[in-house]
Amino acid sequence: MVPPIASAALKARIKRPSMLKKLCNPEDMLHHFPNGTYIGWSGFTGVGYPKKMPTFLADHVEKNNLQGKLRYGLFVGASSGAETENRWAALDMIERRSPHQVGKNIAKGINNGSIKFFDKHLSMFPSDLVYGWYTKDRPTNKLDVVVVEATEIREDGSIVPGASVGASPELLQLADKIIIEVNTALPNFSGLHDITMTDLPPHRKPYLIMDVEDRIGTTSIPIDTEKVVGVIESDYQDQTLPNAPADETSQQIAGHLIEFFEHEVKHGRLPASLLPLQSGIGNIANAVIGGLEHSNFRNLRVWTEVIQDTFLDLFDSGRLDFATATSIRFSPTGFDRFYGNWEAYENKLLLRSQSVSNSPEIIKRLGVIGMNTPVEVDIYAHANSTCVMGSRMLNGLGGSADFLRNAKYSIMHTPSTRPSKTDPHGVSCIVPMCTHVDQTEHDLDIVVTEVGLADVRGLSPRERARVIIDKCAHPVYRPILQAYFDKAEYECLRKGMGHEPHLLFNAFDMHRALQDEGSMRLAKPW
Amino acid sequence: MVPPIASAALKARIKRPSMLKKLCNPEDMLHHFPNGTYIGWSGFTGVGYPKKMPTFLADHVEKNNLQGKLRYGLFVGASSGAETENRWAALDMIERRSPHQVGKNIAKGINNGSIKFFDKHLSMFPSDLVYGWYTKDRPTNKLDVVVVEATEIREDGSIVPGASVGASPELLQLADKIIIEVNTALPNFSGLHDITMTDLPPHRKPYLIMDVEDRIGTTSIPIDTEKVVGVIESDYQDQTLPNAPADETSQQIAGHLIEFFEHEVKHGRLPASLLPLQSGIGNIANAVIGGLEHSNFRNLRVWTEVIQDTFLDLFDSGRLDFATATSIRFSPTGFDRFYGNWEAYENKLLLRSQSVSNSPEIIKRLGVIGMNTPVEVDIYAHANSTCVMGSRMLNGLGGSADFLRNAKYSIMHTPSTRPSKTDPHGVSCIVPMCTHVDQTEHDLDIVVTEVGLADVRGLSPRERARVIIDKCAHPVYRPILQAYFDKAEYECLRKGMGHEPHLLFNAFDMHRALQDEGSMRLAKPW
Repeated sequence: MVPPIASAALKARIKRPSMLKKLCNPEDMLHHFPNGTYIGWSGFTGVGYPKKMPTFLADHVEKNNLQGKLRYGLFVGASSGAETENRWAALDMIERRSPHQVGKNIAKGINNGSIKFFDKHLSMFPSDLVYGWYTKDRPTNKLDVVVVEATEIREDGSIVPGASVGASPELLQLADKIIIEVNTALPNFSGLHDITMTDLPPHRKPYLIMDVEDRIGTTSIPIDTEKVVGVIESDYQDQTLPNAPADETSQQIAGHLIEFFEHEVKHGRLPASLLPLQSGIGNIANAVIGGLEHSNFRNLRVWTEVIQDTFLDLFDSGRLDFATATSIRFSPTGFDRFYGNWEAYENKLLLRSQSVSNSPEIIKRLGVIGMNTPVEVDIYAHANSTCVMGSRMLNGLGGSADFLRNAKYSIMHTPSTRPSKTDPHGVSCIVPMCTHVDQTEHDLDIVVTEVGLADVRGLSPRERARVIIDKCAHPVYRPILQAYFDKAEYECLRKGMGHEPHLLFNAFDMHRALQDEGSMRLAKPW
Repeated sequence: MVPPIASAALKARIKRPSMLKKLCNPEDMLHHFPNGTYIGWSGFTGVGYPKKMPTFLADHVEKNNLQGKLRYGLFVGASSGAETENRWAALDMIERRSPHQVGKNIAKGINNGSIKFFDKHLSMFPSDLVYGWYTKDRPTNKLDVVVVEATEIREDGSIVPGASVGASPELLQLADKIIIEVNTALPNFSGLHDITMTDLPPHRKPYLIMDVEDRIGTTSIPIDTEKVVGVIESDYQDQTLPNAPADETSQQIAGHLIEFFEHEVKHGRLPASLLPLQSGIGNIANAVIGGLEHSNFRNLRVWTEVIQDTFLDLFDSGRLDFATATSIRFSPTGFDRFYGNWEAYENKLLLRSQSVSNSPEIIKRLGVIGMNTPVEVDIYAHANSTCVMGSRMLNGLGGSADFLRNAKYSIMHTPSTRPSKTDPHGVSCIVPMCTHVDQTEHDLDIVVTEVGLADVRGLSPRERARVIIDKCAHPVYRPILQAYFDKAEYECLRKGMGHEPHLLFNAFDMHRALQDEGSMRLAKPW
């Protein structure tokens, strides 16, 4: 095969001559991907993932009708781009996947049993990887091939990632072979990262980060250059989607939260500039950050997983001093804005590995305000972040529990209801008992819906139930939940088992009504 | 009232003259304890708690028929001595209690609704306390009175605790008034502690501990001496119980675990001296530590919550190099042994606050091997550590989730069954779905019963279910659980919701059989 000729743009990005010699086409790498290969990709929340090699492999499978014959173990920090991993799922190329994913076909494969998926705290996934947990039954104890996107290869062979760091440091640590995609369609992100590797105990050291802007690492990821089997030029952009505008429900939730923050500042429990904010992905998260834009808070700081468009507004209005995360996932127009004003943002942003962005150690130390959206929350403040009806996987746990366990303020925000097929309020997001528990009652301080905010700090379970039903439940469901709680309390106290009263054999009756009759409000009275 | 005369023993323990002037009798302090007082006590797992003042107050209530008329909020690092808090519960003196407790009457009060109890991660309780979460609705934002046991008051007014540190540093930080019980019946524990206080974000710093013996603090707890309203001489010992001998089941579990550790060492995933061990309380924990006594492991280290008798054997045989915890809870004969050979142990032991002993930061960094016993574990590796039948509180979460979330090896050990009233194997500790979840599937690596050990690292839920049923379930329950899983898998995969298959409306059928018919084995076939 004829090696490709390096463009001027590519030469400017590859400072180490020996790496230029490894320049190749994706098809030259095909032999590294036999059926059953364990593969690592860079990437996090759909940015910074490799694009050429995965696309070539998908084309190869499609063209040669190899569906179901080339199946891989796929390990990525979090989700990758839909045009890569979701297409792989559609082509039945994924045998095993961890720890997080986004895509209709992947979810389908996971829930019909063709993809073995396990979700893990995003802070823990990279260290478990380095511990050898996921490769312990492999002949080499390694990931066979790790494919990473870079925006520069330095003279020492180290690589500068693009819009995410994710688990790349650890994936590369554990790689048997490495393929680098140097993306010349993206700006050189040099200087935007703070890279640390993961040591094994007993040789692990503290993360000496005491504020969001603290740097403790290098600006590129060191790699074992002898492991690099190929370098590919890439010119594909990260494929992101436009953001949905904040709806009224989300804005109401944001309003409750901002009022709560003001209350906490007033009572001396929060500084006037708050504490570092963590905000999940989605409508409500966007509305909360958007709401801060119209608040009185200044000098805000962000310690989170993913930086999104709304943070650009906060930067532009001078309210946000600094933001750090493991990925920048803007919409296409957001990326235009960011790349077009690079100088305005580059000194206010830092991307770290997910081991650091989601580190329990640092989240606890900084006193982060953690905010996430669940599938459902129960009256005792357990939350389900992953499995609908206890069984159907959505995207995975992500970093929700990293933040909610360790944050100073652990906040779950959700609409009080979601529509079912036949009822605009057919699903109550406040339920008697979660059908799957990812966040326990020991981890939540605040539950907030558009109806109101329940502050459950320091409350016993029966106190919590009263305040959650009263403040957060939709009016349609308030009497239903209250009836459940009243009967459970009566029955359990009578039996001397009333710490956290449940009607154990009717705890999922609302879910049953949803399944059988199309709406939780049709649950039979308890 | 006549102030007591200081004994020579007491004078030797109180180095600050102004403190000697505050010497008083418990009855002099009565006026600090009106109904509704929020009280903090030192103590952790039934050692190091104040004894005179609580006993006096209980006598006072009993003598004057004040049951139900003097009710308090009671905050202690973990459990206190049965003769104090359990007696208080019997006299209806506890309105609110957190975060952990042991005692028949307390459990009774919690489960009949007379005591408002909430359990919190023991690492988080002290910081939440300092955040003001638990006193936010109090007039002063403080704990009204904090009563601590000391074995010395130093010239600077700082105090040397006894056999536990627990949450004393933070309780004292948050105290409005302080009463010190100087215990002259205990040895002076000076030098055995490493004390750190809890700073508030954004001023919190890393815990610079990189090995079990690292010291980062002081040997005594600084206090605001102006807050001290009284000093009481105490001469009561910590009231602990003898240890139950390890039974055959526990020894079998220990055997599986030691074999597993050997396997991990062989494959290079553990150093030959293992990594710091955390071990819970109870029969199995004792058997595991006892089992190490007869293993080939040397130079062991312990990073745990509570040090128990079996560690003394490990010290004596030269296998254990160092142990650190937040409390030393020996049996009466264990304490005799410890006090009688102080010089042999004092340089191999360190007591820290529970913020440090249970710190997620340090547990993760050191790569601790965490081992705990649950109420029940389900086939997907969720665990219930607290609430029987989802509702009846036992003792509280304790530090289980601090360790299991952050440990390198997260291990749950349990007998495969427990007896019900009518069936020696009436309760299966492996169930289809936990009736209460404290540890999620994202937190457990290993489940072990006397039947065998299930290694679920890196497995998807359906893979986990197969290995847990196969390796851990009691033979009586293996076919029952397999039938549940098979039907759930069939139904859920068919509906495209098979990531973690459940028969949601029959998930607690084994619990129903236990309740209605006295044994889980009588569950109707699914």
